[in-house]
Amino acid sequence: MLDRYMVGRLIDLWLAEDIGACDLTCQVMIDPDAKGAFRMNAREPMTMAGIEVGAMVFRHYDPTLKIEVSVKDGERVAPGTELLRVSGAARSVLTGERTALNIVQHLSGIATETAKYVKEIAGTRARLIDTRKTTPGLRMLEKHAVVCGGGANHRLGLDGGVMIKDNHIAIAGSITAAMARARAGVPALTKIEVECDRLDQVREALAAKADVIMVDNMALADMQEAVKIVDGRIPIEASGGVRLNTIRAIAETGVDFISTSRITQASQAVDIGLDDAA
Amino acid sequence: MLDRYMVGRLIDLWLAEDIGACDLTCQVMIDPDAKGAFRMNAREPMTMAGIEVGAMVFRHYDPTLKIEVSVKDGERVAPGTELLRVSGAARSVLTGERTALNIVQHLSGIATETAKYVKEIAGTRARLIDTRKTTPGLRMLEKHAVVCGGGANHRLGLDGGVMIKDNHIAIAGSITAAMARARAGVPALTKIEVECDRLDQVREALAAKADVIMVDNMALADMQEAVKIVDGRIPIEASGGVRLNTIRAIAETGVDFISTSRITQASQAVDIGLDDAA
Amino acid sequence: MLDRYMVGRLIDLWLAEDIGACDLTCQVMIDPDAKGAFRMNAREPMTMAGIEVGAMVFRHYDPTLKIEVSVKDGERVAPGTELLRVSGAARSVLTGERTALNIVQHLSGIATETAKYVKEIAGTRARLIDTRKTTPGLRMLEKHAVVCGGGANHRLGLDGGVMIKDNHIAIAGSITAAMARARAGVPALTKIEVECDRLDQVREALAAKADVIMVDNMALADMQEAVKIVDGRIPIEASGGVRLNTIRAIAETGVDFISTSRITQASQAVDIGLDDAA
Amino acid sequence: MLDRYMVGRLIDLWLAEDIGACDLTCQVMIDPDAKGAFRMNAREPMTMAGIEVGAMVFRHYDPTLKIEVSVKDGERVAPGTELLRVSGAARSVLTGERTALNIVQHLSGIATETAKYVKEIAGTRARLIDTRKTTPGLRMLEKHAVVCGGGANHRLGLDGGVMIKDNHIAIAGSITAAMARARAGVPALTKIEVECDRLDQVREALAAKADVIMVDNMALADMQEAVKIVDGRIPIEASGGVRLNTIRAIAETGVDFISTSRITQASQAVDIGLDDAA
Amino acid sequence: MLDRYMVGRLIDLWLAEDIGACDLTCQVMIDPDAKGAFRMNAREPMTMAGIEVGAMVFRHYDPTLKIEVSVKDGERVAPGTELLRVSGAARSVLTGERTALNIVQHLSGIATETAKYVKEIAGTRARLIDTRKTTPGLRMLEKHAVVCGGGANHRLGLDGGVMIKDNHIAIAGSITAAMARARAGVPALTKIEVECDRLDQVREALAAKADVIMVDNMALADMQEAVKIVDGRIPIEASGGVRLNTIRAIAETGVDFISTSRITQASQAVDIGLDDAA
Amino acid sequence: MLDRYMVGRLIDLWLAEDIGACDLTCQVMIDPDAKGAFRMNAREPMTMAGIEVGAMVFRHYDPTLKIEVSVKDGERVAPGTELLRVSGAARSVLTGERTALNIVQHLSGIATETAKYVKEIAGTRARLIDTRKTTPGLRMLEKHAVVCGGGANHRLGLDGGVMIKDNHIAIAGSITAAMARARAGVPALTKIEVECDRLDQVREALAAKADVIMVDNMALADMQEAVKIVDGRIPIEASGGVRLNTIRAIAETGVDFISTSRITQASQAVDIGLDDAA
Repeated sequence: MLDRYMVGRLIDLWLAEDIGACDLTCQVMIDPDAKGAFRMNAREPMTMAGIEVGAMVFRHYDPTLKIEVSVKDGERVAPGTELLRVSGAARSVLTGERTALNIVQHLSGIATETAKYVKEIAGTRARLIDTRKTTPGLRMLEKHAVVCGGGANHRLGLDGGVMIKDNHIAIAGSITAAMARARAGVPALTKIEVECDRLDQVREALAAKADVIMVDNMALADMQEAVKIVDGRIPIEASGGVRLNTIRAIAETGVDFISTSRITQASQAVDIGLDDAA
Repeated sequence: MLDRYMVGRLIDLWLAEDIGACDLTCQVMIDPDAKGAFRMNAREPMTMAGIEVGAMVFRHYDPTLKIEVSVKDGERVAPGTELLRVSGAARSVLTGERTALNIVQHLSGIATETAKYVKEIAGTRARLIDTRKTTPGLRMLEKHAVVCGGGANHRLGLDGGVMIKDNHIAIAGSITAAMARARAGVPALTKIEVECDRLDQVREALAAKADVIMVDNMALADMQEAVKIVDGRIPIEASGGVRLNTIRAIAETGVDFISTSRITQASQAVDIGLDDAA
Repeated sequence: MLDRYMVGRLIDLWLAEDIGACDLTCQVMIDPDAKGAFRMNAREPMTMAGIEVGAMVFRHYDPTLKIEVSVKDGERVAPGTELLRVSGAARSVLTGERTALNIVQHLSGIATETAKYVKEIAGTRARLIDTRKTTPGLRMLEKHAVVCGGGANHRLGLDGGVMIKDNHIAIAGSITAAMARARAGVPALTKIEVECDRLDQVREALAAKADVIMVDNMALADMQEAVKIVDGRIPIEASGGVRLNTIRAIAETGVDFISTSRITQASQAVDIGLDDAA
Repeated sequence: MLDRYMVGRLIDLWLAEDIGACDLTCQVMIDPDAKGAFRMNAREPMTMAGIEVGAMVFRHYDPTLKIEVSVKDGERVAPGTELLRVSGAARSVLTGERTALNIVQHLSGIATETAKYVKEIAGTRARLIDTRKTTPGLRMLEKHAVVCGGGANHRLGLDGGVMIKDNHIAIAGSITAAMARARAGVPALTKIEVECDRLDQVREALAAKADVIMVDNMALADMQEAVKIVDGRIPIEASGGVRLNTIRAIAETGVDFISTSRITQASQAVDIGLDDAA
Repeated sequence: MLDRYMVGRLIDLWLAEDIGACDLTCQVMIDPDAKGAFRMNAREPMTMAGIEVGAMVFRHYDPTLKIEVSVKDGERVAPGTELLRVSGAARSVLTGERTALNIVQHLSGIATETAKYVKEIAGTRARLIDTRKTTPGLRMLEKHAVVCGGGANHRLGLDGGVMIKDNHIAIAGSITAAMARARAGVPALTKIEVECDRLDQVREALAAKADVIMVDNMALADMQEAVKIVDGRIPIEASGGVRLNTIRAIAETGVDFISTSRITQASQAVDIGLDDAA
Repeated sequence: MLDRYMVGRLIDLWLAEDIGACDLTCQVMIDPDAKGAFRMNAREPMTMAGIEVGAMVFRHYDPTLKIEVSVKDGERVAPGTELLRVSGAARSVLTGERTALNIVQHLSGIATETAKYVKEIAGTRARLIDTRKTTPGLRMLEKHAVVCGGGANHRLGLDGGVMIKDNHIAIAGSITAAMARARAGVPALTKIEVECDRLDQVREALAAKADVIMVDNMALADMQEAVKIVDGRIPIEASGGVRLNTIRAIAETGVDFISTSRITQASQAVDIGLDDAA
């Protein structure tokens, strides 16, 4: 779900941020004509995400660099695996190095965390999905990393669907009224999801032709009941209290989607380095 | 170290990313004239960072919103503490909500993690400092969060100082030659730091008038020896293998700075919510 | 569906385009301290769209101007109706005048054209919707104008839903296979629409759980049959050959949506002027 | 009059607007390695404008696409004519398709409308010119389309000349005073045009060394008289009430320019499609 | 000729350039709540240009600052004259100080130099005009400074008129042919100037209806002859070898304009300081 | 110290400024397919700066142009020396010409002026350094030109070091207190310079561990005394009253750096032209 074109604009920002006025160290220590060859290596086990973005950082900073990407996003790699090779003007590689590493480490951290949750629910019908709780400025990249880790996306942003919550239901008067109001105002291809805390709300949302139902912080037994009520007519998303040790039970209720912010807000950067390949 | 002017430009990017073409839900569910009052609340103990940035997100999206910030960056707060109040057009608050929360949660997560390390080295001369291993696009904000957590910054970017490493020393022939080359080429107010793996390098760097010495992955005994050699003439920075359970021993060698990427790369977002204040 | 924040950025572009280096006429002919009051007036019958955008052009160019908007988007107005009043620095009003008029005339032209089609299908279940055939750079504004004219939107852009067409079906092997592939890869809140030329395709798409079916250039009898087959389970969109004199018959087949590019590609600017209000 | 460099920036905006976060359909339905070859074809008779801009949309989105333009701007083409060929990554072509078509359809619509007016005045000394009544964001492209249709431009923007109108004359006290004020304040290469409603104003403007005279909404007999008065010393522009069935008579009065907003505000997009060229 | 709206965008660039990541000195030495009052003072005699731009730098960086401008652009001021007062957050004033001073010093330097040339030609019909030899990024501001110094502008940029030179005449075959080609292709309000080295060229350009004639590096006697030939029908511009000690003689030949790059390329910044006003 | 990546963004601005809507002259006089070859030549003796930037202007405007740079920045060249050759589309070269020349002339003017000062202090230990008194928008380029002329940079912007001045000392209470406050708040690699008017301040700053001492407008004898006091432990910068006829005496006091704004604020553009190379 990564648009190369959009990513190019972010890279501009990242490079400007790190370089500031100029890379003083490179400009005094590295000859402008010096050439070098470098390898980006995994230093721990990880699920790759963003390796092409890392390559683009180098390409963007200096289009004359020669770059070969050695792995694919979504691949599981062992420590020591070569991820990409970059060669050409040593100054350019070294100036871009930190930015390239930072983004690949960050995104692969998210993919690696996501993969743990996905593994837990293997064999169930449930799919792990993300939320809008992402790092400001990295929305699409982090959603891509979730997909690399085996998860799926919920919506990409505020224009990617309608979420009817408590306060909206209160304003409209009922789920039925809220659904009518939403349907009348959104584009034909927009899905509407209704957040339900109770089973009677599930029934009302279904009758009101919601496209998706979210069961939020419901007891497992209630979730199971909701699955029965809906009976496959529309997808059900479970959210709230999702942890590595709770997700399996949630998945076994038969819900279609399980969403959690943990994969984007509680993941850690993985360890990746750039080494001389001479 | 946060420039309000620069932050404004980032907020533009974040809002565009989340809103996309428009906030479909708000536009269909919330009356354009509806007013609301909301409170941002801490939902776990945390060290605050970026609360003004969160306020700016709302102000930037809609300059007519009324905002009162209730805490200060750097403050330690308990669960349930009110962080800010925002009132005015309900649509504007709800459209900006997720972006505002995401950034405050992320930055306060870094400050909270930093504070743990800082607490460990209390009473020693050592100061905790950060690295350039930050999330692309958030460099200055994350460095600000480190300061909020009681740490300090190393350099802000590639134009904020020179780092002479192994490969530079190899290119120049010696630390002495590398120092000469660097000094000749950088602005008068630029500091030069030399990364040393061995004690003889520490001696050479000192003689060559380095401004700062980094002892990288050195044994504790060697660090202590390095501190003796330098004898307070210039600061020493220790790096490598810094964890919550190792940092105290490193600090007790007498070094001036201890740097770690853990505070920016291994922190987790803290839990903060926006609630109706009616 | 108009985000004030996004519109502000477009206005920057428009003003720069018209002003170039500076408004030579105003700068030589109008005293910098001269004040003026002006009224924007309709010069023919029209359905309003974008009057707030016109107001924003003035406000954006000079925040000290005083502006009162006299009508609402979506309103039907007679020739001579006052649309807005603007007063303050005469230079600012006159420099912004052409840009403000151009956009209001263009958008109201679309709303006015849309209203003609909407009137034709009054009393049927069908809703008129737009396409992605809009003027480059004005997508969201033109989609807003369609809503002002009584129509609805199809999707806002390429990230607002999936359209499975002939070539996709050919690539995947069948509608069923194409649907499976799409469902597996898109966000949970993304709708998938299948373009069908024949009734057996309608049946297959329905079985494959398409969210919307488009019947493209089908005979009226076949459309009617498609409506029977689908039987209200999902919406049907009719497209192709939609004109003012054909749309009623299409609507009477019982389809849910009728889409046409005519409202955005064949509308004409309506006549609006700015007059001295002294 | 099209600067390739400026157009590139607009294309950025257009693509961002249509793609949003990403082209969901392409990303799920088209293999990233799939290649394709496509032809852009005219589907009705038209005068071409902007075919190079259409080519640039593809090139801008993906510089690796191979593009051959088959016609020239300004050419009259029959239905079925191939306008350009594009081949390479199928995803890139399909993502850029709508934006490329939209702009070529819009601009060729203007050129086609312009050509109708130009044909009417063939054989007279009059040239058809445009106004500043253009679609916001497309000024230079629409002015280029007018030239493709056989017309000429009036001025490009507010910095491209001075227009002295009623209100300026009132402020200055007389045409003579207004001309003096303008001449003193504008660059040496700036032309000054005076809008005249009456013949005595034409005489005064001529005496005051206006560079161009506009006769606005004058009777044909008066226009003819104005032409006699001016006697070829400076150009005369006629404006007001210009329609396909009135323009010939206006031209036959002997004026140099006839301006109308109809060619930019009342033209319709022409029909162009992209077809598989395999 | 200064558009406040355009200047705002340049100020963004200038502030970003000077501030970089942040103003370290202000942030450590000045309390965020400290208030101050400062005066910008002339430290030598000068002709003012850009004082409003200086004020805008402060206003742009911090809209809460209170600013009073004490002089007008174009005014001649003595050493010690107060130019503006700014008060409010001391941090904001001090961070913006250098950028504000730099631009006012630079522009007033140009105005001061221009005034020297203008004084030399007092009483003649000639007006001093500038060229496109300006500092990249400051075109409009420097052209404004020339006007402040009593000069006028030639054209604002490449879209502000046509200059037919040697090489164009060679390409077209003759001045007559070049003029025809130019007239056919440019907007109705575009002036065409022909550069002439010899008197026969002056005659041909006049016959070909050039709007302005430039006599380039001609002997004074030839210039005088050119003035006679043209006899006031169109303006003549003299260029080449213009210095303070040659300009009077050139002006006395009777030419309308004298252009020189010296006023923008050989001027020096004047001395202006910011002092505490407490 | 020039980052190619940053320069590219400035070139965008410069070209837009000069071209405006389009280069009218080139578009009417030069065939789009015409090819040409041109040489940029020095027309007076000069020290080169920015020749690569000039080349980038052409490359940026039209990446298909063929460019060979014939000299290096920092080189001293005689009148008539060829600086670069550019060939390809004649339109592109001529549209970019003025912008390319303007920047090379401006920067080489600064380098040439700098070289005069540097020559004066040959054989002393002093190095000539610049200030933040640069032309807004050209900071890094002018600092690069200073280096080309044999000088060095002071700091690149407000984030490149701390300057403690009178008012800061007053706020903090003493130099010692000010130093403590600064050291506690800035990044580890930030240098702190203290501006001293008297010798006792020099002693206090040295004791307080300032990184650099500036002696501002001190008598030569006092400077010499300051040099003795500091005794090589940290660098001393002299500023104030630096002119070509005073700099040698200042240098002979033994200071390390001498700073002046004259090289950036009182330099003049050198004469460079673009000639046909056919």
